[in-house]
Amino acid sequence: MQKPSIPKGTRDFSPEEMAKRNYIFDTIKEVYHLYGFQQIETPAMENLSTLMGKYGEEGDKLLFKILNSGDFLSGISFDVETWRAASLQNKICEKGLRYDLTVPFARFVVMNRDKISFPFKRYQIQPVWRADRPQKGRYREFYQCDADVVGSDSLLNEVELVQIMDEVYRRFNINVCIKINNRKILSGIAEVIGEPDKITDITVAIDKLDKIGLEKVNEELVSKGISAAAIEKLQPIILLNGSNNEKLEVLKEILANSPIGLKGVEELEYIFNYIRLLNIETTVELDLTLARGLNYYTGAIFEVKALDVEIGSITGGGRYDNLTGVFGMPGVSGVGISFGADRIYDVLNQLNLYPENTIHLTQVIFINFGEQETAYCFPLLNELRKYNICAEIYPEAVKLKKQMSYADNKKIPFVVIVGENEMREDKLTLKNMTTGEQQLLSKDELLNIF
Amino acid sequence: MQKPSIPKGTRDFSPEEMAKRNYIFDTIKEVYHLYGFQQIETPAMENLSTLMGKYGEEGDKLLFKILNSGDFLSGISFDVETWRAASLQNKICEKGLRYDLTVPFARFVVMNRDKISFPFKRYQIQPVWRADRPQKGRYREFYQCDADVVGSDSLLNEVELVQIMDEVYRRFNINVCIKINNRKILSGIAEVIGEPDKITDITVAIDKLDKIGLEKVNEELVSKGISAAAIEKLQPIILLNGSNNEKLEVLKEILANSPIGLKGVEELEYIFNYIRLLNIETTVELDLTLARGLNYYTGAIFEVKALDVEIGSITGGGRYDNLTGVFGMPGVSGVGISFGADRIYDVLNQLNLYPENTIHLTQVIFINFGEQETAYCFPLLNELRKYNICAEIYPEAVKLKKQMSYADNKKIPFVVIVGENEMREDKLTLKNMTTGEQQLLSKDELLNIF
Repeated sequence: MQKPSIPKGTRDFSPEEMAKRNYIFDTIKEVYHLYGFQQIETPAMENLSTLMGKYGEEGDKLLFKILNSGDFLSGISFDVETWRAASLQNKICEKGLRYDLTVPFARFVVMNRDKISFPFKRYQIQPVWRADRPQKGRYREFYQCDADVVGSDSLLNEVELVQIMDEVYRRFNINVCIKINNRKILSGIAEVIGEPDKITDITVAIDKLDKIGLEKVNEELVSKGISAAAIEKLQPIILLNGSNNEKLEVLKEILANSPIGLKGVEELEYIFNYIRLLNIETTVELDLTLARGLNYYTGAIFEVKALDVEIGSITGGGRYDNLTGVFGMPGVSGVGISFGADRIYDVLNQLNLYPENTIHLTQVIFINFGEQETAYCFPLLNELRKYNICAEIYPEAVKLKKQMSYADNKKIPFVVIVGENEMREDKLTLKNMTTGEQQLLSKDELLNIF
Repeated sequence: MQKPSIPKGTRDFSPEEMAKRNYIFDTIKEVYHLYGFQQIETPAMENLSTLMGKYGEEGDKLLFKILNSGDFLSGISFDVETWRAASLQNKICEKGLRYDLTVPFARFVVMNRDKISFPFKRYQIQPVWRADRPQKGRYREFYQCDADVVGSDSLLNEVELVQIMDEVYRRFNINVCIKINNRKILSGIAEVIGEPDKITDITVAIDKLDKIGLEKVNEELVSKGISAAAIEKLQPIILLNGSNNEKLEVLKEILANSPIGLKGVEELEYIFNYIRLLNIETTVELDLTLARGLNYYTGAIFEVKALDVEIGSITGGGRYDNLTGVFGMPGVSGVGISFGADRIYDVLNQLNLYPENTIHLTQVIFINFGEQETAYCFPLLNELRKYNICAEIYPEAVKLKKQMSYADNKKIPFVVIVGENEMREDKLTLKNMTTGEQQLLSKDELLNIF
């Protein structure tokens, strides 16, 4: 007899976990809808020709490949040349599992370009699969929750995405800081200090200022081969602080000779103006060390940090060019964000922020004392359901204790008890499982309570 | 440049299709919740040891297998013996994609037996994958929507599943007939006519009565090797008709000497009594030709047919024994149903039964005439969203015609127009896209309308 297990890095979700996860997904969906985003879904399997080469060499290795069905060796020559993993794999696998939602989205846009009315505001909440080494908090199957606007260069899209991040985390009651940067400013800095290839090294070093101090930051910059003149010019940028406006004023001076850098400053000013106009409560902070996916982003870069929990970023995103160029459709730029559902789940758990009613669905259960009592209860049970009350009856007339412990385990807040006495009086007993209080009620009184 | 495509038998879902599918899934979920069912999810990938041998030889072939990651040939000897699809596949694939929701559910129950409080009422709505030959209405990736109660032999579960089918289809406004049969009655019939192995042949032949007539049915029975004496005894069963009660009375006589057959009759009587007690409106009809998954079911068998559309069954299910025996956990019986989401989608489309508001989400769009107008509109847009009105602004100040056609394509029912005049008067123009009517309103008047 086999003892069953599941593949490493994958998870089952229990009813309680599902209820919590649905709360997260539903909240995000509601806010996406509020801003006019529409849902799409794409297949779990994509052709490997769609996926390969889009995530770098490392990414290609992390794709789950699906064996061709039927006689997958038919027509393949049996020789030593073929008998290498890399070579054989190309011959016996045509499909792979989705690795993210961006590439399938790009493929979707290209295949449906005639049906889509641009700007296209789409969201997508689906699992993705990566053959990563499983570890704490990293899974081989996990959900992504992406929203993107493609086919529009307007910065109003950036503004609305900031609003969405603000709204979602206010609904979750999670205190966050929204960090924002602009790739053009980073390019401008690299330009004015004459080190265009060292932007990543520079942002990594600046990020350590609080921890290691200015002297060590400068030592690190030297060790990365950055010239003394460049480091000199970088000093006001490393020490940049104050309000967003103060930072932007300093940057304007430093970047005075860099058109691209000034363009970045102007874009950020536009976004910050709207943030003020809209009285957005969440702190939105210009953070020059923010450089996620640097090679991909071309304008705004976003990241959200939870303030009350030690955890990495819980949302990220930015503006990009040329989403679909690789599939032969040039000129499609866009901006998007992605909520990290697994991390949000952990934050809500740690801070115990799930609303009470997300977890227990059934509001009332009828105890089963036998055929007669059941026949008496059933129409009433039905009546409750007509009023959208989630209600059940224990399906068998087993010992009361067992039925009560079922109600307890399922966290059902109310129990209806109907025995001979109640039937004789055409009444029922309602027990509040939280307070232990019991009431004898008529059927109408019960309906009124719920 | 590659022209992208998706694997055959798979589908993308557009925003409109997603809205319709969500309407279907949400309706089914709401009704499941009303009856106390709780959601679980299992991973898309299962170990092949969990899946293989559970769906027959044909099913094993239809499983999508996933290539082991990394150097999948390492340690495998390079010889002619290995170089056969069946043999190589076992060595290079450990995982496969879920083929249905029942086997993963059984695996889930076994692995979580200590945490589950039985009877366990679970539902699961997830995609499954089958390497079937794609054809009209048959896909390689499709959703199943299963609900099961396990760990309870009570017929109240069958009653509630009938209620659920009734409720779901009333909410959809689809006219249906719920067909019900009982495996024990079929076993009883086989017993009393002395042909225990021919039950499938018999039900298939009886099913043709309306089309081919009694004589041809009897000829078919002869051709299947059923004895003349058995066919003689079958006559009243083939000709069985009238109300459910009348049928059950006839069956009681015929099955008088079959304890198992009488047990089946008794079970159906119990269910029909409750259907009367609860005034279930949908026709529930005893149909002896209903024999789906005969080898699997042990008691009630269910099927739902749409009355106004030519299509196969749109829901099916039944009672089974020993769900988890194959994983070493004996004695877990249960009863379940599964809604066919793809077919329900087709029925709702053909009968045009989608509620108006399922499809268009955004209720109002603001036209963009430039920076000043946008800054005027944004706070108002935000105000609407605070009242849960889905609202957008066109992100760029392009030609009015282009913006209106975007609103049209997205089926947005209201458009807000704010130009210089409106700004001067601190008002706005609201256009109803259905009637073409325009109104000049104050901001408060707009909020009142929504």
